Amino acid sequence: MFRHTDYLQFDVKPEKPDPVYAHKLQELIGGAYGEMTVTMQYLMQGWNCRMKGKYKDLIMDIATEEMGHVEMIATMIARLLEGAPATDSTKNAAGDPVVAAVLGGMDPQQAIVSGGGAMLANSNGVPWNGSYIVASGNLLADFRSNAAVESQGRLQTARLFHMTDDPGVKDMLRFNLARDTYHQNLWLAAIEELKADGLEDTIAPDDLLDEEHTEHATSLWHLSDGPDADKGRWAHGTAPDGKHEMGFLADPQPLGDKQSGPPPDPKLYATYDGALGEPSKPAFGTEKGVMGKIKDAVDPDPTG
Amino acid sequence: MFRHTDYLQFDVKPEKPDPVYAHKLQELIGGAYGEMTVTMQYLMQGWNCRMKGKYKDLIMDIATEEMGHVEMIATMIARLLEGAPATDSTKNAAGDPVVAAVLGGMDPQQAIVSGGGAMLANSNGVPWNGSYIVASGNLLADFRSNAAVESQGRLQTARLFHMTDDPGVKDMLRFNLARDTYHQNLWLAAIEELKADGLEDTIAPDDLLDEEHTEHATSLWHLSDGPDADKGRWAHGTAPDGKHEMGFLADPQPLGDKQSGPPPDPKLYATYDGALGEPSKPAFGTEKGVMGKIKDAVDPDPTG
Amino acid sequence: MFRHTDYLQFDVKPEKPDPVYAHKLQELIGGAYGEMTVTMQYLMQGWNCRMKGKYKDLIMDIATEEMGHVEMIATMIARLLEGAPATDSTKNAAGDPVVAAVLGGMDPQQAIVSGGGAMLANSNGVPWNGSYIVASGNLLADFRSNAAVESQGRLQTARLFHMTDDPGVKDMLRFNLARDTYHQNLWLAAIEELKADGLEDTIAPDDLLDEEHTEHATSLWHLSDGPDADKGRWAHGTAPDGKHEMGFLADPQPLGDKQSGPPPDPKLYATYDGALGEPSKPAFGTEKGVMGKIKDAVDPDPTG
Amino acid sequence: MFRHTDYLQFDVKPEKPDPVYAHKLQELIGGAYGEMTVTMQYLMQGWNCRMKGKYKDLIMDIATEEMGHVEMIATMIARLLEGAPATDSTKNAAGDPVVAAVLGGMDPQQAIVSGGGAMLANSNGVPWNGSYIVASGNLLADFRSNAAVESQGRLQTARLFHMTDDPGVKDMLRFNLARDTYHQNLWLAAIEELKADGLEDTIAPDDLLDEEHTEHATSLWHLSDGPDADKGRWAHGTAPDGKHEMGFLADPQPLGDKQSGPPPDPKLYATYDGALGEPSKPAFGTEKGVMGKIKDAVDPDPTG
Amino acid sequence: MFRHTDYLQFDVKPEKPDPVYAHKLQELIGGAYGEMTVTMQYLMQGWNCRMKGKYKDLIMDIATEEMGHVEMIATMIARLLEGAPATDSTKNAAGDPVVAAVLGGMDPQQAIVSGGGAMLANSNGVPWNGSYIVASGNLLADFRSNAAVESQGRLQTARLFHMTDDPGVKDMLRFNLARDTYHQNLWLAAIEELKADGLEDTIAPDDLLDEEHTEHATSLWHLSDGPDADKGRWAHGTAPDGKHEMGFLADPQPLGDKQSGPPPDPKLYATYDGALGEPSKPAFGTEKGVMGKIKDAVDPDPTG
Amino acid sequence: MFRHTDYLQFDVKPEKPDPVYAHKLQELIGGAYGEMTVTMQYLMQGWNCRMKGKYKDLIMDIATEEMGHVEMIATMIARLLEGAPATDSTKNAAGDPVVAAVLGGMDPQQAIVSGGGAMLANSNGVPWNGSYIVASGNLLADFRSNAAVESQGRLQTARLFHMTDDPGVKDMLRFNLARDTYHQNLWLAAIEELKADGLEDTIAPDDLLDEEHTEHATSLWHLSDGPDADKGRWAHGTAPDGKHEMGFLADPQPLGDKQSGPPPDPKLYATYDGALGEPSKPAFGTEKGVMGKIKDAVDPDPTG
Repeated sequence: MFRHTDYLQFDVKPEKPDPVYAHKLQELIGGAYGEMTVTMQYLMQGWNCRMKGKYKDLIMDIATEEMGHVEMIATMIARLLEGAPATDSTKNAAGDPVVAAVLGGMDPQQAIVSGGGAMLANSNGVPWNGSYIVASGNLLADFRSNAAVESQGRLQTARLFHMTDDPGVKDMLRFNLARDTYHQNLWLAAIEELKADGLEDTIAPDDLLDEEHTEHATSLWHLSDGPDADKGRWAHGTAPDGKHEMGFLADPQPLGDKQSGPPPDPKLYATYDGALGEPSKPAFGTEKGVMGKIKDAVDPDPTG
Repeated sequence: MFRHTDYLQFDVKPEKPDPVYAHKLQELIGGAYGEMTVTMQYLMQGWNCRMKGKYKDLIMDIATEEMGHVEMIATMIARLLEGAPATDSTKNAAGDPVVAAVLGGMDPQQAIVSGGGAMLANSNGVPWNGSYIVASGNLLADFRSNAAVESQGRLQTARLFHMTDDPGVKDMLRFNLARDTYHQNLWLAAIEELKADGLEDTIAPDDLLDEEHTEHATSLWHLSDGPDADKGRWAHGTAPDGKHEMGFLADPQPLGDKQSGPPPDPKLYATYDGALGEPSKPAFGTEKGVMGKIKDAVDPDPTG
Repeated sequence: MFRHTDYLQFDVKPEKPDPVYAHKLQELIGGAYGEMTVTMQYLMQGWNCRMKGKYKDLIMDIATEEMGHVEMIATMIARLLEGAPATDSTKNAAGDPVVAAVLGGMDPQQAIVSGGGAMLANSNGVPWNGSYIVASGNLLADFRSNAAVESQGRLQTARLFHMTDDPGVKDMLRFNLARDTYHQNLWLAAIEELKADGLEDTIAPDDLLDEEHTEHATSLWHLSDGPDADKGRWAHGTAPDGKHEMGFLADPQPLGDKQSGPPPDPKLYATYDGALGEPSKPAFGTEKGVMGKIKDAVDPDPTG
Repeated sequence: MFRHTDYLQFDVKPEKPDPVYAHKLQELIGGAYGEMTVTMQYLMQGWNCRMKGKYKDLIMDIATEEMGHVEMIATMIARLLEGAPATDSTKNAAGDPVVAAVLGGMDPQQAIVSGGGAMLANSNGVPWNGSYIVASGNLLADFRSNAAVESQGRLQTARLFHMTDDPGVKDMLRFNLARDTYHQNLWLAAIEELKADGLEDTIAPDDLLDEEHTEHATSLWHLSDGPDADKGRWAHGTAPDGKHEMGFLADPQPLGDKQSGPPPDPKLYATYDGALGEPSKPAFGTEKGVMGKIKDAVDPDPTG
Repeated sequence: MFRHTDYLQFDVKPEKPDPVYAHKLQELIGGAYGEMTVTMQYLMQGWNCRMKGKYKDLIMDIATEEMGHVEMIATMIARLLEGAPATDSTKNAAGDPVVAAVLGGMDPQQAIVSGGGAMLANSNGVPWNGSYIVASGNLLADFRSNAAVESQGRLQTARLFHMTDDPGVKDMLRFNLARDTYHQNLWLAAIEELKADGLEDTIAPDDLLDEEHTEHATSLWHLSDGPDADKGRWAHGTAPDGKHEMGFLADPQPLGDKQSGPPPDPKLYATYDGALGEPSKPAFGTEKGVMGKIKDAVDPDPTG
Repeated sequence: MFRHTDYLQFDVKPEKPDPVYAHKLQELIGGAYGEMTVTMQYLMQGWNCRMKGKYKDLIMDIATEEMGHVEMIATMIARLLEGAPATDSTKNAAGDPVVAAVLGGMDPQQAIVSGGGAMLANSNGVPWNGSYIVASGNLLADFRSNAAVESQGRLQTARLFHMTDDPGVKDMLRFNLARDTYHQNLWLAAIEELKADGLEDTIAPDDLLDEEHTEHATSLWHLSDGPDADKGRWAHGTAPDGKHEMGFLADPQPLGDKQSGPPPDPKLYATYDGALGEPSKPAFGTEKGVMGKIKDAVDPDPTG
C-alpha cells in the first residue's frame, strides 16, 4: 500500500515557461527509458521477487522513489507550459517568427488533450506502454536491465541538460543526473552482491551450462567484413565468467540443413507444386497415452 | 550490403510437429527479448557507431549472426506446424481431448494469417515493434543494454528448453543457449574494454559529474518499510565507480516545493476558481533578440 | 446495412488553406476522443445491444450520424491542405520564416503518405486503435462512457475553436459543438431513462451489492496528505445511490497480509534462496472429478 | 513523493493455484479499465489540477489507493501461478486432459517472460498503454470519465467474480467490488459538487454555448431505420442541462456541400484529370504581416 | 452522410453457438485484412479522391458495403457466443474435457470486456489500428493495395471456411467468399481502366522515370545463393511496363561508399575517439538568404 | 545465414546536413511502406515458401537486397543530422528564425534517444511494427501485396524527391526510385509466371469457387449516391478472371435477417428486459462423441 505527500522530492521551479522544452521533456516521462519505465519495472520486480529481505526491500525503496520522479517531471511540464501560445492561430505564427518557433516545436496534444499538462507519452507523442518493462524473477537478468535503463536514462537527461538555459530546469536536472549516477552504482553493486551471496553467477541464468553445446559458447562468428572484429578482448583469453576461452571464427560456415518449410496443409492454400509430398500428421494422435487407451476401449474407430 | 545462403547456421530438425510449442516459440522471434530485437538493436548500433575499427566491426558481426537466428526460429516454427489440426472444427475438438489440448494452445494467426508459418509477433500475438531496441550512440549505455537483452534472452530460452521433450528442438536450443552464453561474455568483455581503452568509465555518460548535485548521488532513499534495504553493499562503502561513498537515508524528507500546476489558460477550460491568478506569458515575446529588434524597427505595435 | 450520400451533413468550407491547423484537426478524427471513436463505440454498442426497441434504435441513429462526422473532418483536413508547401525544401524554409512557421507545424505523413489528405491518426501521428472504444453490453456502464467521451470531445473541439481565425472552419466547429452539446444531454437523459425503466440503477452493474464487503463500500481512504479531501460531499451523507452513507477514513491502515510471491518453480529460474520451501502443485491434479476417476480406472500410475 | 508499506491494502490469499484464472485476471491489471488505468488517470489528473483544496486532495487520495490495487492484483496473479504446469511439454498435455485444460488457458508470457508473475498487459496479452487514460484539466469532463471507468471496472470485476470458485479469490474481489461501488458514488457526488460550487454546469466545457449553432443542439437525427428511437426521453422535453428542448428529426437531410477534395499538388501524384483546376496557394505567403513587410524591404523578389 | 437499416446485407444464422470459432472470426473483423480495414481504407480513399465521377463513386459504393460486413461479422460473433461457458470456473474445466476444449480456445475479452460480443481486435486480441490502411491519393498504388487486401481477405475466409462444420456459418462465408471474388475482379478491372483512361500507366507513380538511374531499373541483384532465381520471367525479356529489359546481376558488387556515421556532437555523448574530427555545422546558418541579410543588417554579431 | 559487407549498395553522400529532411526520411525506414517492411515481408515470405526453386530463390534475393536499403537510409539520416542544432535552447530558436525553422521540424528522438542517428520509426515517430507485413504462404496473394507495397514505396520516394534540393540526397533517391520501378515490374512479372506455371489463377486462393454463392460474385452494390459508379469496366462484361460476367445492382436491398444479439448470459450483466428469453447452451455438452460416452459410463450425473 502507498502513501503520498504533496511535497515534491526536489524543487521543480522553472524560471520561465518554455513549451518547446516541455515537448522534449515528455521523453523523460513516457519514453522507453523514462520515469514511468523505471517506476513500473521496479514495482513489478519487487512484487515478483521471491526472497524476503534486502533485495526485495531495496527494489521497493527505489520503485517508490521513481514514482515521485514521474510526479516531478509531470509538474515541470505543466509549469513550462504556463501561458503557452496554444490558442494562437497559424496566421499569427506566420507573421511572427517568435510565435512560429514556439508553435512549430510544441506538442499539439499537450494543448488539445491535456489542456496544458503532461501526457503519458514520449517526445514524439507515442503513449508509454507496458512492453518497455521487464520483471523476470531472475534478479541477475533484471538488475542488468536496471543498470542499462539507468544508463540510457542518464544519457537522455544529459542530452536534455544541454538543450535548455533555464537555471530552474537545470537545477532539477542536476538532481536527476545525480540520482541516475547513484542508481547506476547501486545496480552494479547489487549485481556484485548477488554473486557474493552465491545466488547468481556471471551467466544468466546460472544453469544448463552443461546442457548447451559448449563448443559454440566461445567464439565470435566473423560474418561482416570489418577487419578489426578480432582485435578486442572478446576474441581472446578467458571469458568474464572465468569458465570459457574466447575465440574467433574467421571464416564461419553454416552448420545446419537447408532452410525450407514443410509440405503445406492443402486447406491453408499455400502455393505448392507437390514436390515435397504430403504433410505428416502431428504425433499426438498416434500415441497411446492415457487418453489413447481410453479411446481405444470406448470407441475403436479412431476417426469417430 | 548483405548476402544470404540458404543453409541455416545450425540444424533445425524437430522430431515431430508440435503446434502448441510453435506458439510458445513466437516469444523468441517477436518478443521484446527475441531474435528480431537483437538483430535490429545491433544493426542500428553498428550503423550508428561513430568510430571505425574493432567496436563497429564487432557489432556488425553479431548483428549479422542474429539475423540468421530469426531465420532459424522462423523455420523451426513452420516445421513444428506441419500437419497441425488447424482446420479441425471445434466439434472435433470437443469430442477429442487430444485435439482439444492442441487447439486450445495454438496461435490462431499461425493458421489463419500465415498459413502454417511464423508471425512477427510474440507468444501472445503482439507484433514486434521498433521501440524494443536502443541504439544511442553511447557504447557503454548500449553494451549494457546488450548484456541485459542477452540475459533475458537466455533466460527465456532456458525456460522454453524445459517445455519440450523433442530432441530435435532441444538440439537447436542447446546451440542458442551456447550463443547466448558467449554473447553475455562478449558484451561484458566489451564493457571492460571500453574502460581499458579510456573511452568510457563506469557511469554513462562519463560527464556532467561535476554539474550534478553530488550530495544526492550517494544514498538510498528509504521510502518503503522493508527493514533490510540497508543490508546490502549498495548502502555502504565505495561505489563501483570508485568515486562516491554510498549511504542510506533512513528517514528521507521531501526537498521540494508543493506540487501544483500553474494558473490555466482560460481558453483551454481547465476547471479553475481563479485563486492562482492569471497565467504569465512565456518569456520569448518580451525578449529583444535579433527578431525583437527587427520587429521594433518595422512595426512598433507588438500586437501587429 | 448502410447507404451513403455524397452530401455532407454540414458545410465544410474553409476560407483559406491552413496546413498547420490541418495537423491539429487530426485529433478530432483519430484521437482517443475523436469521431472514429464515437462512431465505432456506438456501432459496436448498438450491435451488442440485447434489447429491441428505443435504446438500440437510439444508439444506431447516433452511430450512423458520427460516421458522417468522420467524413466531415477528413474533408476539412484535405481542403485545409490545398497547396500546402509540402514539397518546399528545408533550404526554402530556413530562408523564409513564413514557410518555416508552416513547415514546422505540418504533419509529415499528410504529405508523404496520404498526399494531401487526412490520416487515421491523432495530432501526434499515432494511429487510431480499437482499444479506444468500449461496448460492454451493460448500457449504464456504456452510456456513462458515452457521456464522458462526448464531454472530452466537446472540450477538445472548444480548444480547437480558439486556435483558428478562419470563419469557414469556425462555422463547421459551431455545428460540431452543438452536436456535442446535444449528445451530452442525450446520454445523460438516457441514463435517467434506464433507471426510470427499472433496467439499471445507480451502481453498474446493479448486482452483487450483497456479496461485496459492504463495510468497504463507503469511505474515502486518506492516503495523501492534502488536508481538504474530506471537505466534499463524497465524504459525508447519503451516497448518490441512496443506499450507502459516505465517510472518511482519516488514518487508514493496511488490512492485508504482507506482499510476497510464492516459492518459484526452479525451472523458471527466479533467483531464490529456498527460504520459502517448495512450490505446491496446482490443485487440479489431485482432485477426483470425472477425468480423475477415468484415469484411476485406466492407468493407476499417475505419472503415466 | 510517495511512501510504501509491504502490507497489502486487503488480503490476497487464494486457496489454491489456478493459472487459467491468473490469465483472466490480467484484465484487471493491464486492461483499458484495470487498476493501472485508474492509478495513472487519477495521478495525472491530480497533478494537472489547477485548484488547491478538496478536489485535488480527493483525487490524490484515490490515486494513491489505486496504486495499491495494482499491487494486490499483481500479488494475486503470482500466487495463482504457484506450481503452474508451465514446463510440462505438449506431449504431457495431449495425454492428460487435466493438464490440457490448464495449458490451453494459460498465458504463455506469464511463464516465459515473467517467470510466474504478472505482466503489465491485458487478458489477451496486449501491453497496457498511456492512451487509456485522460487528464484534461477540466474536472467535469474528467470526473465523467472516472465514473465511466469505475463502472466498466466493477462490471469486469463482477464478471470475473463468477468465473472462480476459490473463496480466497472471491474474498479479495468482494473488497474490489465494494471499492468500485464507493468510487462510483464518489465521482457522481463530486460531479454534483462541481455544479453546487459553481465551477462547472451540465455541459462540458461550460462555454461557447452562445457561439455554437444552437438550432443543431437539440434534436436526434434519425439516420437508422429502427422505429423506436423517438420513444425515449432524449427526444422530448427539457434537456438535462435545463436549457434546451430536445426533439426528433424524423427525416433528416444533409445540410452541407458535396464531399470532395481540392485540386491536388502535382508533385504529390494524386491521380487527377485536371477538371478541378490548379490548387490555390495557402494564404500565408500573400499576406503582409511583419515578416512580409521585412521581406519587401530587404528583397523585393518574392521567389528569392 | 450515411443511413442505416437494421436488416443485414446477408443472413447471419449459425446453427449452434461455438465460442472457439467466435474467437477465430475476430480475424475477419479486426485483423489487418479484415472488414474494418477494407471499410476504412475505401472510405479514406473515396474521400481523398481528387476526381469526380466513376472512380470516386465506385470507391464509395464498395466502402459503404464493407461497413455492412463489419456488422455481419460482429453479429455472427455475438450469436456464436450465446450461452458460452464464460463463467465456468477452471475447476469445472479441469474435470470436463468438453468444457476444457472450449475454455482453452475462447477469447477472454469477449467475456470479460464485451460481455458476449465482438471486440474490435484480431484473433490474437490485438486491437485494430489505423496503420493497416492506406489512402495515398494515387489510385494505381491504392487499387493495387485494394486488390492485395481482398486477396488476403479471401484467403483468410477460405481458411476459416474449413474450420467449421456449421451450415449457417458456412452459408454466410459463401457470401463473403463471393464478394471477395467480385472485389478482386473489380479492382483488377479498375486498374486496367486507369490505364485505358490514360490516367496512370504501369509504374506508380507514372513519373520521374527519366530522373531515376535507369541502369538500375532493370536487373535482379543475386544476393542469396539459391541457384534458380534467374529461371523466371522477371530476369529476362521486356518488363510488364513495356519499357525496360529485365536482366540478372549474377555477382553484384556494392556500388557505394563505406558505411559510417559522421563525427558526433560532443553534447550528445556518442562514444568517440576523435578520429573523424569535428562535426561540420548544418549549412543553413552560413547561407545568406533573406534572413541572413536581415540579420547582417540588424545585428552583425552572429552569436547575438 | 547472412553475411555483410561494410560497403553500401549505393552512394549515400548528402552535400550538406539537413535535420528537417532527416526527420521526413524516417518514413522510408520505419513507415508502413518503408524499407523495414519490404525487408521483413520478403524474408518471412521466403522462409514460408513451400516450393524449392525459382520463386523462393527470387524472394530471398530481393529480401537480402532490401536489408541493405535499411542500411542506406539509416546512414543517410545520420549524415543529414551531422552538426544538427539539437542542443540549441528554445531561447536561441526564438531569436533566430533560421534555427527556428530547423528546430520546429526536427525529430526530438533523433537527438534525445539515438544521439544523432536514425530511429526505427516513421516520420511521426511511431515505431515500426510487425503487423505491417504479410507472409501468407499463398504466393499470388503475397505477390499482390508486394506489388502494392513497392507502389506505395515508390510514390513516397517520389514525393520525398521533391522535398530536397541536395544533389547527394537526390542521387541516392534516383537509385531507390529505379529499384522500386524494377521491383514493381518484377512482382507483376512473377504474378504472370504463377499463372503461366499453373500454380495460381486470377482469384486468390484459386479454390472454393464452386462453394461460394456465385450469384453474389458478379455485381456492384450501389449503396452510395454517386451516379457514375456503373460507368466503369467493373460493372460490365467479362471479369478479369474470364469466368464471371460483371454487373451492377442499382437498387440493392438487404438479403439478411434483422441485426440482433442473442439473449445474454445473466452473469455477464448485459442490460436486458428478458424479451428474448433465456440463452441456449452451446451444443457441445449435449452431443455424445467419444467423451460423452465416457462420461455417461463413468458418471451418469452430468453435473458431476
